[in-house]
This record gives sequence, C-alpha cells and structure tokens, in this order.
Amino acid sequence: MGTSTILSDLGTEIIISICAVIGIAFSLFQWYLVSQVKLSLEKPTADGKNGFTEALIEEEEGINDHTVVQKCAEIQNAISEGATSFLFTEYQYVGVFMVIFALLIFVFLGSVEGFSTSSKICTYDTTKMCKPALMTAVFSTVSFLLGAITSVVSGFLGMKIATYANARTTLEARKGVGKAFIVAFRSGAVMGFLLAANGLLVLYITINLFKIYYGDDWEGLFESITGYGLGGSSMALFGRVGGGIYTKAADVGADLVGKVERNIPEDDPRNPAVIADNVGDNVGDIAGMGSDLFGSYAESSCAALVVASISSFGNTHDFTSMMYPLIVSSVGILVCLITTLFATDFFEVKTVKQIEPSLKYQLIISTVLMTIGVAIVSWIALPSSFTIFNFGAQKVVKNWQLFLCVGVGLWAGLIIGFVTEYYTSNAYSPVQDVADSCRTGAATNVIFGLALGYKSVIIPIFAIAVSIFVSFSFAAMYGVAVAALGMLSTIATGLAIDAYGPISDNAGGIAEMAGMSHIIRERTDALDAAGNTTAAIGKGFAIGSAALVSLALFGAFVSRAEITTVDVLTPKVFIGLLVGAMLPYWFSAMTMKSVGKAALKMVEEVRRQFNTIPGLMEGTAKPDYATCVKISTDASIKEMIPPGALVMLTPLIVGILFGVETLSGVLAGSLVSGVQIAISASNTGGAWDNAKKYIEAGISEHAKSLGPKGSDPHKAAVIGDTVGDPLKDTSGPSLNILIKLMAVESLVFAPFFATHGGLLFKIF
Amino acid sequence: MGTSTILSDLGTEIIISICAVIGIAFSLFQWYLVSQVKLSLEKPTADGKNGFTEALIEEEEGINDHTVVQKCAEIQNAISEGATSFLFTEYQYVGVFMVIFALLIFVFLGSVEGFSTSSKICTYDTTKMCKPALMTAVFSTVSFLLGAITSVVSGFLGMKIATYANARTTLEARKGVGKAFIVAFRSGAVMGFLLAANGLLVLYITINLFKIYYGDDWEGLFESITGYGLGGSSMALFGRVGGGIYTKAADVGADLVGKVERNIPEDDPRNPAVIADNVGDNVGDIAGMGSDLFGSYAESSCAALVVASISSFGNTHDFTSMMYPLIVSSVGILVCLITTLFATDFFEVKTVKQIEPSLKYQLIISTVLMTIGVAIVSWIALPSSFTIFNFGAQKVVKNWQLFLCVGVGLWAGLIIGFVTEYYTSNAYSPVQDVADSCRTGAATNVIFGLALGYKSVIIPIFAIAVSIFVSFSFAAMYGVAVAALGMLSTIATGLAIDAYGPISDNAGGIAEMAGMSHIIRERTDALDAAGNTTAAIGKGFAIGSAALVSLALFGAFVSRAEITTVDVLTPKVFIGLLVGAMLPYWFSAMTMKSVGKAALKMVEEVRRQFNTIPGLMEGTAKPDYATCVKISTDASIKEMIPPGALVMLTPLIVGILFGVETLSGVLAGSLVSGVQIAISASNTGGAWDNAKKYIEAGISEHAKSLGPKGSDPHKAAVIGDTVGDPLKDTSGPSLNILIKLMAVESLVFAPFFATHGGLLFKIF
Repeated sequence: MGTSTILSDLGTEIIISICAVIGIAFSLFQWYLVSQVKLSLEKPTADGKNGFTEALIEEEEGINDHTVVQKCAEIQNAISEGATSFLFTEYQYVGVFMVIFALLIFVFLGSVEGFSTSSKICTYDTTKMCKPALMTAVFSTVSFLLGAITSVVSGFLGMKIATYANARTTLEARKGVGKAFIVAFRSGAVMGFLLAANGLLVLYITINLFKIYYGDDWEGLFESITGYGLGGSSMALFGRVGGGIYTKAADVGADLVGKVERNIPEDDPRNPAVIADNVGDNVGDIAGMGSDLFGSYAESSCAALVVASISSFGNTHDFTSMMYPLIVSSVGILVCLITTLFATDFFEVKTVKQIEPSLKYQLIISTVLMTIGVAIVSWIALPSSFTIFNFGAQKVVKNWQLFLCVGVGLWAGLIIGFVTEYYTSNAYSPVQDVADSCRTGAATNVIFGLALGYKSVIIPIFAIAVSIFVSFSFAAMYGVAVAALGMLSTIATGLAIDAYGPISDNAGGIAEMAGMSHIIRERTDALDAAGNTTAAIGKGFAIGSAALVSLALFGAFVSRAEITTVDVLTPKVFIGLLVGAMLPYWFSAMTMKSVGKAALKMVEEVRRQFNTIPGLMEGTAKPDYATCVKISTDASIKEMIPPGALVMLTPLIVGILFGVETLSGVLAGSLVSGVQIAISASNTGGAWDNAKKYIEAGISEHAKSLGPKGSDPHKAAVIGDTVGDPLKDTSGPSLNILIKLMAVESLVFAPFFATHGGLLFKIF
Repeated sequence: MGTSTILSDLGTEIIISICAVIGIAFSLFQWYLVSQVKLSLEKPTADGKNGFTEALIEEEEGINDHTVVQKCAEIQNAISEGATSFLFTEYQYVGVFMVIFALLIFVFLGSVEGFSTSSKICTYDTTKMCKPALMTAVFSTVSFLLGAITSVVSGFLGMKIATYANARTTLEARKGVGKAFIVAFRSGAVMGFLLAANGLLVLYITINLFKIYYGDDWEGLFESITGYGLGGSSMALFGRVGGGIYTKAADVGADLVGKVERNIPEDDPRNPAVIADNVGDNVGDIAGMGSDLFGSYAESSCAALVVASISSFGNTHDFTSMMYPLIVSSVGILVCLITTLFATDFFEVKTVKQIEPSLKYQLIISTVLMTIGVAIVSWIALPSSFTIFNFGAQKVVKNWQLFLCVGVGLWAGLIIGFVTEYYTSNAYSPVQDVADSCRTGAATNVIFGLALGYKSVIIPIFAIAVSIFVSFSFAAMYGVAVAALGMLSTIATGLAIDAYGPISDNAGGIAEMAGMSHIIRERTDALDAAGNTTAAIGKGFAIGSAALVSLALFGAFVSRAEITTVDVLTPKVFIGLLVGAMLPYWFSAMTMKSVGKAALKMVEEVRRQFNTIPGLMEGTAKPDYATCVKISTDASIKEMIPPGALVMLTPLIVGILFGVETLSGVLAGSLVSGVQIAISASNTGGAWDNAKKYIEAGISEHAKSLGPKGSDPHKAAVIGDTVGDPLKDTSGPSLNILIKLMAVESLVFAPFFATHGGLLFKIF
C-alpha cells in the first residue's frame, strides 16, 4: 500500500500557515489601496486638476465638487449604519440560537453513550480505544461555536468592506469606468481573500489544538471537527434567508411605490426605502453570500476530513495526506492572488465592453492555474496509492485519480460559470429573446423567463453529474468532497467577482442619490449590468458546490450512521425521497411569501411617508430612512423563523421518528430537487434583471426598438425584474442552505440517530 | 398458503363483462339525454312558452330566438370541425409514430433471444417452459397497437361529445343555471363512462384472446399485455403535449391581441383566434386529459398484472385473483353510475352557489361507496392469504391488507382533490390573497401565485407518500399498483367533473359569440369558475395517480430487469437520480417555450387580419377563423416533436448506453421531481385564473374593491392568468406523461436493456 508522501509533515505545517497569512496580508493590502480613494475633499494642486491626470466629470460639467463628495460620504454612512444595525439585531437572535443549538449538540451527542466518561472501542478500527463520546460531544460543541463565529466575522467584515467601498467606487467613476471597476473589484478581493484565508486558518488551528487532547484518536478528532461545518452553515441560514428577505423586501417595496406609483426613478433620494434597499445589497448579497460560501468551504473540508480519518491516511496517521484538502485550499489562495493581479495590474479595463471579458478571464485564469496547482499538490502531498473508506469497504485509490477528482470539480465550476453567464448576460440571445418577448407584454416576459430558467439547468446538471460520477467512481465520498473543494478552491476569486456586483449596484445608487451627473450613472450602470451576471455566476458556483458538498456530507452521514445501502426500492427510503424532493418547494413558498409580506409592510410605510411628509415629492423635505431600515430588519428577522425552523427541525424529526434510512431518502430527494430550483430561480431572476437593463441601455438597434425607459416593453420588463428579485436573491440561493444544512446536521447527529432514532418504526 | 376465492372464475368473467357493458350503455343513455336539447328551433306549443315550463331569457328580453339558436349551431359546427381537423392531422403523425414504434418494440424484444422461435425456460419459475421471446415481441406489439387505438378512440369520442354538448349547454342556460349544469355534467359523464368501460372491455378481451395462445404461460401472457399500457400512454403524449400546446397557443394568442391590444372582451366573435381558442379546450383539456387518464388506468392495470403473474396468483393460475385489478375497476363503474345519479337526478342544482358543492359531493360519494365496493371485492375475489413477488423474494399478504392498499389510494385521491380545491377555488383565502396581491401590480400577483403553487404541493405529497408507504409495505409493487388503481377506480366520475369544465368554458364562449344576453354569460361564467376548480382537481388526480402508476411501473421494470436493489450510494444510480430530477425542467422549458412561440405566430396572424380585413373591428366583416385553426394545428404538431423526442428517447439512450441501474435512477429522479412541478404548475395556473374570475364576478365587498373589469388590479390579474395558461394546461399536465411514459417504456424494453444495455460501462 503506497509509499510515503514527498512533502514532509513540517512542510505541510509551513505551507498551510504561510498561505493563510499571505491571503490575509494581501487582503489588507487591497483594503489599503481602496482606502486611498478619499471621501473628503482633496486640495487642488498647482495644475488646477484636483491632482488627477484626467479631468473629473464635475469639472467638465461645472458642478461643485464639495457637495458631491460630502453627499456621497453621508449616504455611505447611512448605508453602513443601516447594515450594521441589521447585523447586530440579527446577531442577538444568532446568539440565542447558537447557545440553544450548542446545548442540543452537547446533549444529543453526549447521550449516545449515556454521558459516560470512560474510553470506548473505536467505531471503525475496533482494535483501538477511542476517547469517550462525551468528550466528542464537548469538542463538537466547541468546533460548532468556532465555525459559527468565523462565519459571522467573515460576513460582517465583508459587509464593512462593501459599505466602505461603494461611495469610493462612485467617486472613482468620475475618473472613468476603469478606475471605478478597479476599486469595486479590489474591495471584492478584500472580502474574498479574508474569507478564504480566515476559514483555512481557523480550521487549521482548531485541528492542531484538538489534536493535543485527541492524540492518536483521529476518528474522534475529525468527528468533532464536523461541528465546524455545521457552525458555518447554520450562520449562513441567517445570512442567506434573513439577509435575502431583507434585501428583497426593501427592493420590491421601494420599487412598487417609487417606480410604479410615484413614477420616480430607481434609487431616487426622495424614496424613503432607498437606503434600506442599498443596505439590503450589503447584508444579503455580500454578508449572506460570504456566509454561504464559507459554509460550503468548511463543510466540504470537514466531509473530506471525516472520511479520510477512517481511510488509510487516518489509520496510518499520515498527517500530510490527511491535510490534503487544506493544502489544496492553501494553494488556491496563491493562485487567486496571481489571478487578481491580472484584473487590477497586468491589464487595465478602459471601456465598458472590457468589463465582462475581464471578469470572465478571472474565471479562466484561476481555473487553469489551479489545475497546475492541484496536480503539484496531488503529487507531493499524497502517497502514490492509498485506500479510501467506501461504505463498509476500503477502496484503493491512486494519487492521479484524486487529482482528477479535484480537477473535475474545478472545471465543472468553470462550465457552470460560463453557462450561467450565457443565460444571464444581455450580450447573448437568451436574455435578448426574453427582452424581445416584452413586446407582447409582461405575461410573455414571465413565460419566457421561467422557460429560460428551466432550460439553464440542463448543462450545469450534466456538469455536476459528470463530476459526481468521476469523483464517486474513483474515490467514493472522499472523491466527491474533494471535487467540491476543487470547485471552491478558487473561492477568493469567485467571491471577489461576486461581491463586485452589489458594490457596483450600491455605487450606482449613491450616484443617483447624490445627484451626480448622468454620465456617472451610466458608468456605474455598466458596472452593475456586469455585476448582475457575476452575481448569477457566483450563485451558480454556490449551488454547484452546495450540491457536491451535500452529497459528500450525505455520504459521510451514511458512513457514520453505519448503513451500507440506501435502496430506493424500500418504502422507508422512497417516501423519504419523495418528501425530500418536496421540501425545496415548501421552503421556497415560505421565503417567497415572506418577501411578499415584508414588501407590503414596506409599501405601507413608504406610502405613509409620501402622504404625510409635506414637500417630500418636491425634494424639499427629507424622508425618514431609518424607519424603513427598521421595518426591513424586523420583518426579515421575524419572517426567517418558519423557513429556518423547517430546515433545522426536519433532520431532527425525521431522524428521531423515522430513522436513518428515511432521513437518507430525504437528504437525497431534497438535494436532487433543490439544486434544480436553485439554479433555475437564480438564472431566471438574473435574466429578467438584465433584460430590463438591456432595454434601458439601448445599445443595439434591437434594444432601442424596445425602449426607452417608460415604454410598454420596458414596463413589462420591470414587472419581470420585480418577480425575479425574490427568486434570484431570496428563495433560490436560500435553497443552498436547505440542502447543505440538513446534510451537515444529519452528519453531526448521526451517532445519536443511529442509536436512538426511528422511534415510530420501533413502536409499531 | 391461503384458501381459494369465494368468487368463481365464471363469476369473474360475468362481472367484468356485465359491468363494462353497463358502463357503455349508461354512457349512451346519457348521450341520448343530452341530444334531447335541440339545436334546431322547436315549434311553439299552445301555451306560447316554447314548450318549456319557464320563460326563456330571450322571451323575457324580447330577443329573436331564431337567430340565436342558428348562431349557436353554426359556432358549434365551426368548433367541431376545427377539433376534428386538428385530431385528424395529429392522427397522421400518430399513425407514422405507431408504425415505427411498433417495429421498434418488435425488433428490440425479438432480439432478446436472437429471434429464436423455440420455447425457453421461464424467467421466474425456472421449472417451467415459456413461449419464445419472439412471440412475446409479437404480442407486445399487438397489445401496444390495441392500447394506442383504444386511447385514440377514447380521446376522439370525448372530443366529439364535448363539441356536441357545448352549444346545448349554452341554450339550456337560457332556462336556468341548473339545466345548463346538468347538460354539461351529463356530457362529461358520457365521456367518463365510455372511456372507463371501453378501457376495461378492450383489456379484458385482449387478455382472453392472448390466453388462447399462451395457455398456461402467464408470465409471457402478462409480459406482452404491458404493451397495452405503453400504447395508451404514448398516445397521451400526443394528446397532452400536442393538445396542450394547441390550446394555449390559441388562448394566449387570442388574449394578447384581443384583450390587450384591441381591448375587446374574451370570446368576442370579431377575434379571428376565438374559434381556435374554443377548439383548444376540446383537444387539450378533453381529448388530452382523456388519453392521459386512460393511459394511467391501462398502465396501473398492466403493472399490477405483470407483478401478479409472477406472484402466487400467477404460479397457481388463480384466474379470479389474477383479475382482481379488473374487478375493482368493474365495481368502480357501478359506483360511479350511482354517484352520477346524485348530481343529475337525486338532487338538483338550482343556484350558482350549489354548483361547486354538488361537484364536491360527487367526489365524496364516489369515494365512500367505492370503499365499500373495494372491501367486498377484496373479500370475495382474493384468497385470505397469498404471496406477492417482492424484488427477488415472495412476500405473504392478507386480503385485508390489499383492501387497505386500494383504499389508501382511493382516499389519497380524495384528499388531493380537496387540497386542490382549497388552493384553486376562489371561495377560500389562498386565491383571495392572490387576488388581493393584484393591488400592488402584476409582479406581486406572480410572486404570490408561484408561492401558492409551491405551497399547494405539501399535503398532496404527504398523501401520496402515505399511500406509497402503506401499499409498498403491505404488498410491495403490487400494492402500489392497486393503490393507483384505487385512485383511478372512480375515473368515470373524475372524468365527468373534469370534462364538465371545458364544456362550460366553451358554452360561455358560444354565448358571447352568438351575442346572447349578459345573463346567459353570467350563468356560464359561474359554471366555468367551478369548472376551473374541477379541472385543477382533475389534474390533481391525474398527477397523483401518475405518481403511483410510475412507481408501480418502475417496480415492475426493476423486477423484469432482474435487479434487486437500486442503491443511491452508487455513482451510477446517483447521477441517474440527479439527471432524472432535471428532466422535468428540460421538458417544461421546451413545452413553455413552444406555447410562447406558437402564440406569437397566432398573434401575428390575428394582427394581420385586424389590419387587412376592413370592417372587422366594427363587426361588419367576418374574420378568417380557419387560418387561425390551421396555424395552431401546424404549430402544435411541429412544436411537440422536441419534447416528445426527449420523453421517448431518454429511456432508450440511458438504457442502452448506461444500463438498468442508471435508468432506475433516472426514473426515480424524474418521478420525485416531476410530481412536484406538475402539482405546483397546475395549481398556480388554476389559482390565477380564478383570482381573475373572482375580481370579475365581484361577489364580495373585497372582490368589488379590486374590480371592476379593466381596473388596474384586474389588469394585473389578467397577466397572471396568461402566465398561468401554459403552466396549468401545457407544461404541468404534460409532466404526467413524462414520468409515466418513461417508466412504461422502460418496463416494455426491460428484457432488452437487461440483455444488451449498459454499452458504455461494458466498453470502458
């Protein structure tokens, strides 16, 4: 069985630590660069050109620079305060949830061996003694809390950076679209690198600290580490669902009164919900997406580690091979660092048309470089041959096979990214067809949009299926877990281009609110249209990796629950499959209805302000932004409880009452059904948004024939866009959480379900 | 093992034949009653009251009766001709398809044993000799053709009856809503009984004829009978998909120009697409639904028979027990006959408010009576104990357990019916909430409607899951098949209330086109609103039974393919599951896009006529209805090819290239995913339609505050209705065909796939 690895254990320790530190340092450096854009007025230099080599738009149009910069700073402040206030309110609930759930983990897992403090025989290697189940309960609880806190911190920092960068992007847009692009992209990179490096570092330190207690009991060590994934993912529930409801309640509410009833443009400062709308972009798309991807990253690492711990790596205590998933992520940070330089330093975006290609190159470059990186890591950090635990048996795997597993995940991610781009960018025929269907009204727009979303599922599903087939065939569930890690290995770049979207969106809003020149708005709109596409690509990555992660977690759950087959031809499993496939619909019904209800509350408040504040429509009085922020905050927190409960309670109820077989069916059913709805919902929404932008921008002859703003086709497009809002930003992406969280929760509670579950069948 | 049955074999023969004949006779009698409404002017009698006890609306309002009756007859003629022309065009394609597919069946099944004409050892009972595989190929081909022809005839007769009844319903509406209701309902009953009795009779005769050749080889006999199910179901593909595209292309096309652009009311005779629209109701909702339910009936009978043939019934050649599924259907005809009398004779519908309850009682009465019927049949036609084939083993089953299997399916159908009614009738809060959301525009209407559809999935899925669990646990796949038969045992009543909907819809259209009094239109609108709900209920039944049928077929397929487990934890099965869950999305994307494209062609033609025919808008010139009928016909035939090919080719490609395990995954995945989309799509569409009707009717204070016709909320409701059209009448119900047809096709080709399939894995 195999030889030892080329990389020594010390080398592994050094590589992981150094890469994590480099990631954090690079992130801070990008932040420093962004902070160089001053939000206070700079002194004019001798050449009278404000210190810039090019004239600013204001100077050209003779608008006073003083008020604009000041206004931008004010608005940014309001957005930042709103976002902070929402997140802190959310954290109060998060705190309560964390304490209760931590207790639950401790009690459930502790009860597996009746809270005994004596060592037990190991589950898989019965010749050895393992640490008591009670201590695994304690350490699982601790790693759960660590995962949760890391996730919360990642989301919070991401939001802070985004709100720090939005006004700066607006101000840079005065110098040209290229400068603005770099600020927005750099800010995204700050978040991407911070999150990737942070997640890696905390996980690495935790493993090393836990090892002090566990010593040679790696089975218990990595079992308790799975709590880290659960912690990360359960925070993502708050970020994605709560944040998702927040952002769309504000957006839809603002649009319904502003655009439809009062006929004022988007982001008009007279609209009382406009700040809440901009806050929403930051708490939903930034903090929520950050938590979601961090959760995926933590979960796939944990799933890989827990399977590895009962494979030959774990049995022979081969530390370097064991850390293979973390080394892949480490190299990913370096690869993304180089990739980032291509967008910010090696090439320069000069015109609007270069924005989308530039972002697309990011995906290609990172994937190509990472393929080389993975090949090297697989060569030096793995023995040439080893065994992987495969539902009761050990399966022999070669190192090149594992390289293919990671590689297929990585490239499947790229394919998903490109397909998503094709279906959501207004540069291609699908979105243009949707825009064209607006000619015959909103109904055909909705029909074509829904059909587009359904159609966009096909290739990503084949890409995921091929990844699963290759990785599953080569290396069982370990292969699937590392395929997920492969897809997530370029997470820093993925997050950078993803976070870039909402920052540009906010920048446009600030330009509008600060009353800046329409040229600025056109530039930020161009950034934003590319941002819609990248946001859809980000969501594609998120759901693709969520599918792989869930399968890996599902496999790890099945292994820990000690069942060897999940046979569809048994009633227990089949009904689980059927009901599981229904859960995404139930969940989506809840989240969509939540957005609708919260939006109606917002509509009432906005209407009230327009009716009771004299001079608001005329622009002489200021609206009460804070009340709208508060309404969105309260509504989203309240409305996220039912869908949250559905996700958190389903595995517990099914596991306790029906047992692990039915739970396996539920997990498989919700996975295969949820991934379809998530992809179609986010692409449909993205396509509608860009179909509207296509008509508004009027770049081609075709687009001009549909416009301008306010024409009947444009009105139909606005309706599609509004319908798409909750689909693409709330219900669709929230489904990632549904399928991942149920799987990781089942995994953590697997020993409990295996021991005490299936009450109904035991009684009858 | 068990005792013999109480009912003798001769008794079985008598019961089945007599019930089938009674069904046909009752159907003809109902037709006779409908024909008593004369479409020619009746001579006034001595009392000067036209021979009726009540005054006609025309007499009250002093409108000339002559022209109205004549106009109705003319319009009916046009609709009937259009429908016949569409169906005959369709049949040309059907004919080609049937010949090709029959050849395919013969070649594939004949090749299993290399076209050998010598007898072979039986597959399951290896002590016996069975007829050669070549003869099974021949008989499968014959039964395929018989099933196809029966389905085509059923659909055609249903359409003929419906087009015969629509104008008669309009004329009866002059005498009151109750009289009109009875005509519409009786016509539905004609179709329901004809189809149920016909399907039973043909199947029964086929079995008896085939038995002459097969003799004691029941394994081969019932294997070849499965072709009957495939034949029925493949015709349903044409009916549902082709008819579904036809009906909505015409409907959406007519609405987009008529209501939206020209601002003329629905069913206005000036609209050139109005006849095509009315034709569509008959070819889609009547002929399509008829073929669909006939297919389900034939398939579940075949699935039950094929499993029974390798269970103790088949081994001991117990004819009565073997015919249990057919006896249940026979008793179902009697039960439905009594149930029908409750609506037409025992009670009388006098006011609009009594329509929906009357239809609801039909469901309850038939279910209660049928429960008693099933109990009796299970007692007299089954031995007290017997064994059922369960994936390689024989499972002992008691007769009361089989009663529970049928009963649970029957009652699950009722629950699905009621839940569907709750979510789609405008008497309850869900639809009223959707109507209320129209206040804030079309976007919220669409969001709330989609959320309603998603939510409406929950209870039906639990009902189906419970049915599956009970029937599967008690009697394996035989249990699931008879549960499906239980749900379909009241098919005559189900079809009657379902066909009632489009007939009323047409009646309303004819009233409008014939320029009849608005009171007539109000009465037919009330019938139609109830019809929307019953149509949704019918679709609920159709999809619920399709789910059970598919599972039973899937089980029969797995048995015949000789695999004993379908383990999700193998890559082959899991990727099948994932891709299978994607297929309904692919299929829906195709069908929705097809409707959109066909509708746009219709829009162009309607616009052309309005622009080029002078005096059309003023009502002085007649539009060219025939061209619109032709456009719908051609477009629907052309557009149904890609989705049809997807359904028919997937099992062949997957089976041949990837083998039976992956195909099992595909079938399970498309089943659990497709059933959700089908339910949500048909309920969403039904809810939007009735939300619009709720605003138009303006019965409550709430409804009045949203109306009247032409108000902004009403316009928003019309958009929702238009979006819902393809969802509820094309893509949603077509999914039944997807999941059933792929399963029955796999079943028929199972011996071929098991022998020659999985090429890709064999090569690599």
